[in-house]
Amino acid sequence: MQAINTEWTTTEEEVAKKAFDIAYKREIGALIDSVRYRASSLAEIEDMWRLHDFLSVKRHEVDGRYDFRLPTLVFVFAGLVKDGWLSLNELEGLNADKIAKIAALTCM
Amino acid sequence: MQAINTEWTTTEEEVAKKAFDIAYKREIGALIDSVRYRASSLAEIEDMWRLHDFLSVKRHEVDGRYDFRLPTLVFVFAGLVKDGWLSLNELEGLNADKIAKIAALTCM
Repeated sequence: MQAINTEWTTTEEEVAKKAFDIAYKREIGALIDSVRYRASSLAEIEDMWRLHDFLSVKRHEVDGRYDFRLPTLVFVFAGLVKDGWLSLNELEGLNADKIAKIAALTCM
Repeated sequence: MQAINTEWTTTEEEVAKKAFDIAYKREIGALIDSVRYRASSLAEIEDMWRLHDFLSVKRHEVDGRYDFRLPTLVFVFAGLVKDGWLSLNELEGLNADKIAKIAALTCM
């Protein structure tokens, strides 16, 4: 992931942090619901190891995704929008150039 | 784990397989119950990663433990008895020497 040298105003940082936290809370909430559901329907050992594999993948994804560093934040937001954890509307307050970059990246 | 060169009669093999399967079913059943319980009380992400760590350890333990090879079976049974997944009574049908070895190993 190539960093983009873009200035972030204090207000933009606040908007970004709020959106980042919303997406995180949303994704983790959905993940907890999904794990509860999968666990409630465990019937045999293979189901349990499938749950283990699922958690391994999700832990790796979540650890990799939620990285609040300004130079790479447009990529993080593009990924979150693409995967449905954030909408472009929730990034309102960032400048038009950043929004356009994020929107373009979600199409890649 | 050092193998013990002991002869197993066909009847003893059958007794051993039955006991082995009982212990396996018992341990896996308890594990599934435990995972269901842990999952039902998930509240935050740390709980989910703790569940993941728990499953990683249990998968490693179960994969390592349930190895039905005659030369090392007394060690497997000793571990199962020691950890409460099997009682010595359930090994009735093995010869007295094997039972004595297993009983001695559970005290180590």
